Amino acid sequence: MLSFFSRIPSFHPESRLLIIWEALIVLVTLYNCFTIPFRIAFNATIYKNWFLLDNLADLILIIDIFLRFHISYTKEGELIKDKAEISIHYRKTDFKSNLIASLPLDIFVYLFLPQASLILMGLCRIPRLLRFPQCFLIFRKWDNNVYFNSGVVRMFELFIIVFLIDHWVACLWFFIGNLTGQSGESWLQGDNLHLENTTTQYLYSLYWSITTLTTVGYGDITPQNNIELIFTFMVMFLGVSLYAFVIGNVVAVISNLDASKNRFRDKLGQVQAYMWERKIPPSLQKNILDYYQYMWEYNRDVTLDFYFLDELPHSIKTRVYCYLYQELLEKVPIFQDAEPCFIEDLVIKLKPRILPPHDYVIREDQMGHEMYFVKRGQLQAFSEKTGKVYSLLVAGSFFGEIALLYDSRRTASVKTLTYCELFVLYKEDFDKVLNNYPQFSEKVKKIADQRHQVRE
Amino acid sequence: MLSFFSRIPSFHPESRLLIIWEALIVLVTLYNCFTIPFRIAFNATIYKNWFLLDNLADLILIIDIFLRFHISYTKEGELIKDKAEISIHYRKTDFKSNLIASLPLDIFVYLFLPQASLILMGLCRIPRLLRFPQCFLIFRKWDNNVYFNSGVVRMFELFIIVFLIDHWVACLWFFIGNLTGQSGESWLQGDNLHLENTTTQYLYSLYWSITTLTTVGYGDITPQNNIELIFTFMVMFLGVSLYAFVIGNVVAVISNLDASKNRFRDKLGQVQAYMWERKIPPSLQKNILDYYQYMWEYNRDVTLDFYFLDELPHSIKTRVYCYLYQELLEKVPIFQDAEPCFIEDLVIKLKPRILPPHDYVIREDQMGHEMYFVKRGQLQAFSEKTGKVYSLLVAGSFFGEIALLYDSRRTASVKTLTYCELFVLYKEDFDKVLNNYPQFSEKVKKIADQRHQVRE
Amino acid sequence: MLSFFSRIPSFHPESRLLIIWEALIVLVTLYNCFTIPFRIAFNATIYKNWFLLDNLADLILIIDIFLRFHISYTKEGELIKDKAEISIHYRKTDFKSNLIASLPLDIFVYLFLPQASLILMGLCRIPRLLRFPQCFLIFRKWDNNVYFNSGVVRMFELFIIVFLIDHWVACLWFFIGNLTGQSGESWLQGDNLHLENTTTQYLYSLYWSITTLTTVGYGDITPQNNIELIFTFMVMFLGVSLYAFVIGNVVAVISNLDASKNRFRDKLGQVQAYMWERKIPPSLQKNILDYYQYMWEYNRDVTLDFYFLDELPHSIKTRVYCYLYQELLEKVPIFQDAEPCFIEDLVIKLKPRILPPHDYVIREDQMGHEMYFVKRGQLQAFSEKTGKVYSLLVAGSFFGEIALLYDSRRTASVKTLTYCELFVLYKEDFDKVLNNYPQFSEKVKKIADQRHQVRE
Amino acid sequence: MLSFFSRIPSFHPESRLLIIWEALIVLVTLYNCFTIPFRIAFNATIYKNWFLLDNLADLILIIDIFLRFHISYTKEGELIKDKAEISIHYRKTDFKSNLIASLPLDIFVYLFLPQASLILMGLCRIPRLLRFPQCFLIFRKWDNNVYFNSGVVRMFELFIIVFLIDHWVACLWFFIGNLTGQSGESWLQGDNLHLENTTTQYLYSLYWSITTLTTVGYGDITPQNNIELIFTFMVMFLGVSLYAFVIGNVVAVISNLDASKNRFRDKLGQVQAYMWERKIPPSLQKNILDYYQYMWEYNRDVTLDFYFLDELPHSIKTRVYCYLYQELLEKVPIFQDAEPCFIEDLVIKLKPRILPPHDYVIREDQMGHEMYFVKRGQLQAFSEKTGKVYSLLVAGSFFGEIALLYDSRRTASVKTLTYCELFVLYKEDFDKVLNNYPQFSEKVKKIADQRHQVRE
Repeated sequence: MLSFFSRIPSFHPESRLLIIWEALIVLVTLYNCFTIPFRIAFNATIYKNWFLLDNLADLILIIDIFLRFHISYTKEGELIKDKAEISIHYRKTDFKSNLIASLPLDIFVYLFLPQASLILMGLCRIPRLLRFPQCFLIFRKWDNNVYFNSGVVRMFELFIIVFLIDHWVACLWFFIGNLTGQSGESWLQGDNLHLENTTTQYLYSLYWSITTLTTVGYGDITPQNNIELIFTFMVMFLGVSLYAFVIGNVVAVISNLDASKNRFRDKLGQVQAYMWERKIPPSLQKNILDYYQYMWEYNRDVTLDFYFLDELPHSIKTRVYCYLYQELLEKVPIFQDAEPCFIEDLVIKLKPRILPPHDYVIREDQMGHEMYFVKRGQLQAFSEKTGKVYSLLVAGSFFGEIALLYDSRRTASVKTLTYCELFVLYKEDFDKVLNNYPQFSEKVKKIADQRHQVRE
Repeated sequence: MLSFFSRIPSFHPESRLLIIWEALIVLVTLYNCFTIPFRIAFNATIYKNWFLLDNLADLILIIDIFLRFHISYTKEGELIKDKAEISIHYRKTDFKSNLIASLPLDIFVYLFLPQASLILMGLCRIPRLLRFPQCFLIFRKWDNNVYFNSGVVRMFELFIIVFLIDHWVACLWFFIGNLTGQSGESWLQGDNLHLENTTTQYLYSLYWSITTLTTVGYGDITPQNNIELIFTFMVMFLGVSLYAFVIGNVVAVISNLDASKNRFRDKLGQVQAYMWERKIPPSLQKNILDYYQYMWEYNRDVTLDFYFLDELPHSIKTRVYCYLYQELLEKVPIFQDAEPCFIEDLVIKLKPRILPPHDYVIREDQMGHEMYFVKRGQLQAFSEKTGKVYSLLVAGSFFGEIALLYDSRRTASVKTLTYCELFVLYKEDFDKVLNNYPQFSEKVKKIADQRHQVRE
Repeated sequence: MLSFFSRIPSFHPESRLLIIWEALIVLVTLYNCFTIPFRIAFNATIYKNWFLLDNLADLILIIDIFLRFHISYTKEGELIKDKAEISIHYRKTDFKSNLIASLPLDIFVYLFLPQASLILMGLCRIPRLLRFPQCFLIFRKWDNNVYFNSGVVRMFELFIIVFLIDHWVACLWFFIGNLTGQSGESWLQGDNLHLENTTTQYLYSLYWSITTLTTVGYGDITPQNNIELIFTFMVMFLGVSLYAFVIGNVVAVISNLDASKNRFRDKLGQVQAYMWERKIPPSLQKNILDYYQYMWEYNRDVTLDFYFLDELPHSIKTRVYCYLYQELLEKVPIFQDAEPCFIEDLVIKLKPRILPPHDYVIREDQMGHEMYFVKRGQLQAFSEKTGKVYSLLVAGSFFGEIALLYDSRRTASVKTLTYCELFVLYKEDFDKVLNNYPQFSEKVKKIADQRHQVRE
Repeated sequence: MLSFFSRIPSFHPESRLLIIWEALIVLVTLYNCFTIPFRIAFNATIYKNWFLLDNLADLILIIDIFLRFHISYTKEGELIKDKAEISIHYRKTDFKSNLIASLPLDIFVYLFLPQASLILMGLCRIPRLLRFPQCFLIFRKWDNNVYFNSGVVRMFELFIIVFLIDHWVACLWFFIGNLTGQSGESWLQGDNLHLENTTTQYLYSLYWSITTLTTVGYGDITPQNNIELIFTFMVMFLGVSLYAFVIGNVVAVISNLDASKNRFRDKLGQVQAYMWERKIPPSLQKNILDYYQYMWEYNRDVTLDFYFLDELPHSIKTRVYCYLYQELLEKVPIFQDAEPCFIEDLVIKLKPRILPPHDYVIREDQMGHEMYFVKRGQLQAFSEKTGKVYSLLVAGSFFGEIALLYDSRRTASVKTLTYCELFVLYKEDFDKVLNNYPQFSEKVKKIADQRHQVRE
């Protein structure tokens, strides 16, 4: 048996299977948190029908103890996979509480004390609640998992907390009403609820609990004695705190939800205030707003994106850039014989540039120090002197490549016709990369010399 | 018919006409979301009077289906205008649900089953509600439109959601009351509401719904049976969530509303704390606070504005600067013969500077490397040695232009008399621009030599 | 008369007197907003006693119209003081509405129609409410005033809004109850309130209004007919919106209140998480936390402060620095003969440095490029080789001044004994300033040469 | 006596003992704030039993006055320990109010006017409440203490405020009910509460107070006369303000709680939006997300941490770095004979670098300018040409050390096998440090020459 277990490989703490198992543990724990207080408070006779379910829940908790000897854990950022170390770590931390939480006391009571009251059997299951804090650890872990939506996890957690608190308050409220009702007036006598069946009693308890915690306060069920009064105070206090906590969390989630849009809106607001104050003419205002609309809608403010790419480690960054832009580079004749490595090194030097319609990219006769690749949009190469249109440049085109080889004046102007997304490759970046590839560098120089001579 | 449609040009997804049409679709959908549940719940006999309005609403939805084959959509940031592609895209996405939502089942029922109950006819219109999610897509689109105020769109959306939920809860509450009232006690029996007319019944249902959802909870209408109890729980839960959601959104809107002022206030708070702690004398404190007041009131903290201008693409930036400052430059004698291009290139090199009263801009005998343009305020040029005032400089004036031509010591001090907004042009920026205009450069050099010789 | 007014100087829009006058206008407007709806709703017979007060209020509003021709306004950031321009500007904007708001219609009614009902006289005063939006403009102006606490202004505004809405809802509630009570059942019949005196009626109306708007909802006064039901809906909706608005504002005010502390706490939290994770030894942790405690308590994170000083215009910055540090510099022998200008230029080059106890400032035998001034704390100059203590340096001391004159190795180590606040003056900054003072520069060089020769 | 006190050393305002004493003062003040209004309102006969406790509380307040002459205070950031100065400072500030708050008037009344009513004795203790503002100063001080969790302090303060306000409102409500009940109807008559014992009366008062302040509003106790109505208004207003205040604080605490996680989530959200829009292939997306997951989980976004270290003063930074990384450096053969000082100077030049699996650190034949230390993870040194694996590098290893001695091409490629945390030491940093240690520098040069010759 033990040798079988020792042969099981250790699980990664973030494997998908484990997440499902954790969900099961959460479910079982919530089941216990729901049924145990209910049975004690209402002395419920439904117990026997749920016997199977109870035992199934217990079985899952017991299996979890065995399983936990096989789940790696992280120590100072390193994943510990060694079984012996896992065992020591688990025994030091949760093992004892998990063991106590799984003791099947109720089965013993059921077997040896068949006459025991239902309340006693309910009490026997109380240790199960020791598992409750574990739920929050699991929620915390899910919340930290980048694959999960943090907002959803938090809202789910909030819902569980609110629902359980409502339920527990309802159980306690009935318990107090029942207890004080035996020696005086209680809220149960009000509507003759002490004569109703358990379902109705529970529903009315829950009704009062939710009515009070949500601060609706219909006032059809009110405390009738001092103990109930004190309990009501505490519930109302709890209600306000819970409310503030719920609102606090919802506010945090909502304000994080669209943090990036809010920043954009904030910037836009400043831009608008500026334009309004400086009395910028409406047509120019429209141009500026259109530009921001374009930036936001098609690029979610591209400046942020490229900032993020810079942060990634080199290997991942290269792969992202290659996926996105390699195609653009491979079309350029002078790069066609280059090694793949060279293209990879070059691709991460590309810099994005977004241009509105009718903007000049390069101008005739000015010195050029960079070449351009067209990712999106249309441009026009033409002569400013004669007005002659040389060519239309669309997605996948490139221009100005001669500037990479030798310093020269531009032979044509290039103007955008639509919104364009270009990538720029600067000569100095190109030269830096070229230095690492001496063979290819030789070749490029030859081409440059040839062209230059031809030109002169 | 089809050929007619194919001749219609495709609409831009942000054209003004389309926004009006979308508003109409939202209106029709809200009409359906309001009337359909109402009729089913209240078995309302007002049906026939509204027949025309219903059919008009249906007609609009059907027209929308045809129209949607002519609205461009964006794919990876590019606008797709091709009819065939639009058609494929629409058929793949919303077409089916839109078609189902527009099936005129109720007309068939009306024509072929004239004896059918009103509820059945209400049920036939339920598919119309499939259009509801589209409303939120439209709201989202409006929210992303830079021409619309994001806060207003969001508040409007919030209002619609809250109102519809209130209405639906009211309908459901009456439906449940009516159903359970047939076989026992329900809330409707409480005030003999089951004998009242539909209007009163609806108003009381809505009254309870709003009372509960807003957590006011008067308690004059309370649940009377278990089904009503359970429904009440859910409504109260919904109420709290709705409340938290409303507050969360309002908080987000308010805190975004004056984000720029808050940042300013935050800075001011730090400045005040600093001055208070360092025991800066009151008169100096007043100077500093006045400066900040001036900065905020007349420039909304100008540093932010100029940061924004830097971000704009070159062509737009040039147009903004030209609009704002070209006039200032054209007054300078040495620039008067320059090409317009030169002025454009120069104008975006201007740097703003805000100065408080009695601050020195340049001082006699110190080396000068920049010239100044006065945008606003008054300054005084004078000799520090003799105290003689040479001239008063007002908006539109400029000074220090010789520093652009050759390195020289200032011949006078210039001091601000009021709060001033100046623009600085540095020699190095001027030289950079001059390099691109060899002809004009020659001319400037000549002038410089002449003046220099004269001076020596 | 007119010539008298024209001789009045124009008021600055932020003068203290004007703020008091604006406060008076706000008071008068609130008085009108309170009494006018009250009289109309309650048909109050208290009218005649308040006659004098009404006329006083009207008088103030009329004076305000005259006054406003003498208040400067700002246009594109410039203050317009010219009477003619002010007059044109005022006539174009608020003049008409102010005039209508001040028409003494009620006096005419009182004089010519002495039999007119009180309601009619109340209605005559309704135009006074046109002044209400002006209140918000005044609040907005106060909110932008750097001398006022933005949070207090906002909370005051919020209080006014909430109180007026409560009052107006109460007036409307009574009005509706009174109207519908004449032809059926209304809430007034409930407690026989229609027979009570006006005070009690008003208090009960206000009681219901506040109970509903605050969502307390006792439920002892509930709507009794359809019109009241609909009004109740609207009030509950308003209540929720108001609540969300109040909370939104309070959240904004609180989160701005201690924005600078929150940033500090956030940083501290990260520091603690880092130390905890890297298992930094407790004693070192204590050192780090003590350092942050010191930084926060005595300097509010000094880095922020110096950032703010950099932003100020040169003249103000110089004055702040001179006030704070001039004394330190003037003690240094080599600066004692310098011109005041020189000290001023030097003082803004000082850079702050906070050091914890037992930290080395300079070390024996290492090259020195800067001198130090002690602002606070105690340091020790000693020899690391022999351990001999040369001197104790306290607030006002300086050391390392030779490094400003020529490159040399430090002759002693200096160590902090307590937390110290030092100012550093770098040689390059010193040289830069010296260049502008050729005479003093000569002198300094001479001293340097002498000392250097002595040393060699 | 006085000489004894003067011999007591002065206490540091943040010493642990003082914090305990402050907690005691808070406790005593809260005790007074609770009992004094209670006794006055309820004319409580429990007075005599609490006599001892009252006098103990008074004694503590008197001792505090003496103690406060011995607590240092800070003035302009400097700690003033001088007894005379402390005495002057204390007498100028709180001394008088503290003295008045401690006057044992009630003892005199008790001794000389034994027949005096209990209310009078309650009134005599009212000056004790002057100590209340001090509580908030103490809370503020705790809140600023970096060793205390700001959120916990704030929540505790909030709880105290809410509880005391509830209590005071309850006392006032009973007081008003009692007063108005003597000459008419009051809320006390409603349930015959004026005949109940004090405990029940207090509980019902508190019940109403909490029900109203939390906006639950059951409505079983409602105001019965005009004075009670007006009081109810004020309480409801207070309730809403309190609610908004509580929510505002909770929102602030929650949003500060995980500010660093929110920033991370915000960045992640942008990254995901970018990847989704650019259609990055899923496998690459997974790599990127895994990288962020690793960064977050094991390093809490390490970039922030290293930013914080840079801010620390030099001596503390050195100690942190030495603790963390000294071990790594001391293993390197060429550093083994170095002075400890040298290692210390070198250690703070280390730069962290996190790499994902399968990323190249150095590549064969490329020029090397830095050496690496492995903090965590596994790497492989191998030849790219032959594919031969030279060695496996684990935590504690280092490589590329030759690059520190002379410029050379790398002799092998190094690739990560797992996530790795490396530290880089650049040649230029190494050289800078070496300059300060001429002796060791000589030695290093010799080693370099030897190796270089060997290699050639």
